[in-house]
Amino acid sequence: MSRSKKGDRLERELVNMFDDEGFASIRIPASGGATKRELPDILAGDGNNTYAIEAKGRKDGPIYLDWKEIMDLLVFSNRMGVKARIGARYNREDWRFYHPAELYITDSCSRRVDYESDVEHETFEDLISGDGL
Amino acid sequence: MSRSKKGDRLERELVNMFDDEGFASIRIPASGGATKRELPDILAGDGNNTYAIEAKGRKDGPIYLDWKEIMDLLVFSNRMGVKARIGARYNREDWRFYHPAELYITDSCSRRVDYESDVEHETFEDLISGDGL
Repeated sequence: MSRSKKGDRLERELVNMFDDEGFASIRIPASGGATKRELPDILAGDGNNTYAIEAKGRKDGPIYLDWKEIMDLLVFSNRMGVKARIGARYNREDWRFYHPAELYITDSCSRRVDYESDVEHETFEDLISGDGL
Repeated sequence: MSRSKKGDRLERELVNMFDDEGFASIRIPASGGATKRELPDILAGDGNNTYAIEAKGRKDGPIYLDWKEIMDLLVFSNRMGVKARIGARYNREDWRFYHPAELYITDSCSRRVDYESDVEHETFEDLISGDGL
């Protein structure tokens, strides 16, 4: 499965999970915004909590997000007044959600999601219940 | 200009207007959601107010929205906890925004936006400032 098809599948999976929990949720197309700025992959909200999510999947190993990707997510989320999260999904593991500012910063100023590390994260149930970070 | 191209242009215009006012805003693709339910055209928020907008343009005359379109907009907006609006744009006139429940109901249970009528509406500035309905 190509990387983009896998990305589509993961985004659909997450949107469906939110939908099943009574959230309104959408996948945002790359070309959907007013600016050239990159947009988050997903918006989901239930009136109590609204999340802007950058969804990443990998078979294993660390996931890298470059500086601009994180900055764009934070700028968008701060403007709209929603909560920014990085959603990480490893093969056969449950989704984990990270606050962008909590991620490990590499030497090149990108951020790293490392499954093995003990960086604090939320589960999908944490997001649904709003009992998160 | 075809109807869909005109719709694209109007949506882009509105998203750019929100963007210029510091709102985060996106155009939502028809296929972006988890369900078969129709999604609103635009989401825009600044942390104080977030709007789900169904954008409609016409040269003149009344604009009709069918029962399901209104219901889907209200269901989505209530689930996500955002404010539902119908945005109507007549040629050479400023945008007007209507609360879906305030629109005139036709015999066939559709709703009608009528430029000549005195149904209460908001201007774009009302939406931006949050001083609306």
